[in-house]
Amino acid sequence: MHIDLNADLAEGYGQWRIGDDDALLDVLSSANLACGFHAGDPLIMERTVKAALGRGVDIGAHVGFPDKQGFGRRPMQIDADELAAMVIYQLGALEGIARVVGHRMTHMSFHGALGNMAAADSSVAAPLVAAVARFNPELIIVSSTSRAIEDAASSCGLRVATTFLADRAYDKAGLLVPRRLPDSVIHDEAKVLERVRQILRQGTVTTYEGEDLPMRPHSILLHGDTPGALSLARKIRSEIEQAGGKIVPVSQMA
Amino acid sequence: MHIDLNADLAEGYGQWRIGDDDALLDVLSSANLACGFHAGDPLIMERTVKAALGRGVDIGAHVGFPDKQGFGRRPMQIDADELAAMVIYQLGALEGIARVVGHRMTHMSFHGALGNMAAADSSVAAPLVAAVARFNPELIIVSSTSRAIEDAASSCGLRVATTFLADRAYDKAGLLVPRRLPDSVIHDEAKVLERVRQILRQGTVTTYEGEDLPMRPHSILLHGDTPGALSLARKIRSEIEQAGGKIVPVSQMA
Amino acid sequence: MHIDLNADLAEGYGQWRIGDDDALLDVLSSANLACGFHAGDPLIMERTVKAALGRGVDIGAHVGFPDKQGFGRRPMQIDADELAAMVIYQLGALEGIARVVGHRMTHMSFHGALGNMAAADSSVAAPLVAAVARFNPELIIVSSTSRAIEDAASSCGLRVATTFLADRAYDKAGLLVPRRLPDSVIHDEAKVLERVRQILRQGTVTTYEGEDLPMRPHSILLHGDTPGALSLARKIRSEIEQAGGKIVPVSQMA
Amino acid sequence: MHIDLNADLAEGYGQWRIGDDDALLDVLSSANLACGFHAGDPLIMERTVKAALGRGVDIGAHVGFPDKQGFGRRPMQIDADELAAMVIYQLGALEGIARVVGHRMTHMSFHGALGNMAAADSSVAAPLVAAVARFNPELIIVSSTSRAIEDAASSCGLRVATTFLADRAYDKAGLLVPRRLPDSVIHDEAKVLERVRQILRQGTVTTYEGEDLPMRPHSILLHGDTPGALSLARKIRSEIEQAGGKIVPVSQMA
Repeated sequence: MHIDLNADLAEGYGQWRIGDDDALLDVLSSANLACGFHAGDPLIMERTVKAALGRGVDIGAHVGFPDKQGFGRRPMQIDADELAAMVIYQLGALEGIARVVGHRMTHMSFHGALGNMAAADSSVAAPLVAAVARFNPELIIVSSTSRAIEDAASSCGLRVATTFLADRAYDKAGLLVPRRLPDSVIHDEAKVLERVRQILRQGTVTTYEGEDLPMRPHSILLHGDTPGALSLARKIRSEIEQAGGKIVPVSQMA
Repeated sequence: MHIDLNADLAEGYGQWRIGDDDALLDVLSSANLACGFHAGDPLIMERTVKAALGRGVDIGAHVGFPDKQGFGRRPMQIDADELAAMVIYQLGALEGIARVVGHRMTHMSFHGALGNMAAADSSVAAPLVAAVARFNPELIIVSSTSRAIEDAASSCGLRVATTFLADRAYDKAGLLVPRRLPDSVIHDEAKVLERVRQILRQGTVTTYEGEDLPMRPHSILLHGDTPGALSLARKIRSEIEQAGGKIVPVSQMA
Repeated sequence: MHIDLNADLAEGYGQWRIGDDDALLDVLSSANLACGFHAGDPLIMERTVKAALGRGVDIGAHVGFPDKQGFGRRPMQIDADELAAMVIYQLGALEGIARVVGHRMTHMSFHGALGNMAAADSSVAAPLVAAVARFNPELIIVSSTSRAIEDAASSCGLRVATTFLADRAYDKAGLLVPRRLPDSVIHDEAKVLERVRQILRQGTVTTYEGEDLPMRPHSILLHGDTPGALSLARKIRSEIEQAGGKIVPVSQMA
Repeated sequence: MHIDLNADLAEGYGQWRIGDDDALLDVLSSANLACGFHAGDPLIMERTVKAALGRGVDIGAHVGFPDKQGFGRRPMQIDADELAAMVIYQLGALEGIARVVGHRMTHMSFHGALGNMAAADSSVAAPLVAAVARFNPELIIVSSTSRAIEDAASSCGLRVATTFLADRAYDKAGLLVPRRLPDSVIHDEAKVLERVRQILRQGTVTTYEGEDLPMRPHSILLHGDTPGALSLARKIRSEIEQAGGKIVPVSQMA
């Protein structure tokens, strides 16, 4: 049983920070780095790439809307060709930094509102995924379960690695239950660990409606923005290792 | 006699534009593109790269301070390691866009206040030029005459192409006379053309002080931000061609 | 017959400019100034306020989304309380500049996508208009015809001045026909002038569907961003004066 | 013995935060709020103004360079008239928010690199202080000891309140010792408290060189960006109260 542990890093800007990236890197096999649009700046990116390289953690680009004030979480209507150019710009910027540091970019994912829009709407996913393929057809797209993303990737010949959010409720279609609904975010650490165990051993998630839905994610998404989140991330890693699982980045899965 | 004609393009932002890039591209052999820090955005960069490709014009990155409001012309004090990361970020972004469009980046130059600081101060030039070399040792640095830039490039094994500003006065040390001094900018079109003729035929520029200073630039920097500037750019091109000169990008010079 | 002539000014940013504000100010009785979110910056605002004061032209705040790259034309989903704070911030900034210059702000309007959303949706209009009223209950809201804006203003005790876009098609409900539809923007200068004549003399506009719809605007919105637009603005002013109309700012209407 | 306790608040941006403003407000008599240029945004400003109003804490504008990435700490060369417009813009924005909330702005101060440049250079201080006076001649300028600021304020008829940084070393001229020098920042809590005691009881500060320099500040500047800083802030308040001192905002001093 192989599973990737990843998280969103480099989410600071200038003097501001979100999360303890250094501590979280010890738990991860791959990391998604903000690329200066919704968060991140060149120096933070460079330092995070170096830290990931030092820990042997894979890096990918976490591309978002050009909206630091809204942290990329505010839906924006931007024409597909402009969005595609924004995606490539961010990929190129991180690739440049990775090359200079001596690391390499293996994957990418869409952040926040851009991620939600791409996951839900093929007319958004298709041009963006096509832009990724033109940039580098070897990149793996990391995404929560999404038909739109998977279809777009498939038609471009790109691999998709699905990711499981252990602390978020799923509906029976396998989509994330929106945050505004009650119990959509699971705060009970024991329950979160139980969900990790279930996905690893049975390959299912118990949905919001109470049914067991098959799900075989390549990756589990961790958080590190609170002390509790960091501690939970470590416990999830232990849980996997004790269950005999092997933590490997998605780039090393067949 | 080979000479490059270049200009600074992609200097718009969103709806805003400076200069008629399309018209100017017909006159150039290479172009320096703003990369989203002092000017430029992903869509403008992509369109300019496509237009340059269509005309067979070389492209390079014109990297600047992160200051659109000041158009990169305001000196800012930024630590060398952060500036170096900013340079790499911009180079990577343009390279990514160029690759997707099917073009390639042959050179780079420093814009505005960053360019002035790098040209005048080895402690600025050295880390920035070293960052360029780590990014891509094949890139040519395009710069007005500067000992600081040339020494830094030499120690990194990078080529420098010097550029001549036909409408700007030079002092006896070969440095640009600051804009605030009288007659530092030459507005008389006939005089500008005469200076082009002199640099091509005699390899000298008559300095602010009135002496003839040897100068063998690889490139002449043109402007296109006013109708007059565009017309002058065309006349300079004709002047060179009538003198039997051949217009080639710096990347094709020995 | 009293009519206001207004336009959107101060739409530059740093070195970038849109429109010839100085020339247009000679035609206007009131101006809407960008306040630094979608366009405009402190220096441009100050200079425009001074120029307006010098011509005896009323000023108002043209508040928009925080999105210079998109010029405030991209719909963004921002919570109502945050949007209201953004509106107040912009109003305060312009008021401060106006006070220092010796001018005063008489009105405000919503720009671009924010304007469209407020005009179409009471849940957007209500909190924003209420914020304007808390800031200054004397401000007049300048808007194209909108039930949402008018209802919100009415419930806050604010005056609304409606504005007529002579070069834009209206539908039978009195709403602007979206720009993407054919013939939604009227480029024929003679037709635009005829529409001005009709609105002044008959108080009607011929709709997209071909019917005459009663409309009694307080203001006509002019443009100055192309030489043709500026020339048309002058002709509209002449048209009004020749028809015996008096051009007065909305602040001086009963 | 009356002394003001103030601190720099509202230094977040979007999702990012620096310091625990709510906890610190319980210790303060006045607060300096970032105004959206080096930090702060409309919503954060509004919430901080409300929280200050709820605690009876005075508010002032903490104006800075337009550089969130550099947190206003990077020196920038901006023309005096543009800088003055930027100062007025920020003052107006906060005043607008304060008015809507029902609070009022009593003072202002210059942040970071702008503060250092204004404190050290009359040619920077004079136009900025004059701009403050034109905006509102009742505003008090809060500043560390600076001849440039004091002279500029005096010639405009503005009051200056001097502030004491208990954890920073002063030289014999009463200027702050630059942070890069050893022991310029005092980390030992006991020493900081001793310096507060000395300034309150003897009206002197022991300089970097070891002499006792007379200093009669109106205000002590506290920090709240680490748990240790917050705890120290509380101890300083206790120290003052135990010494029979009365904590009052500068606006209530004669």
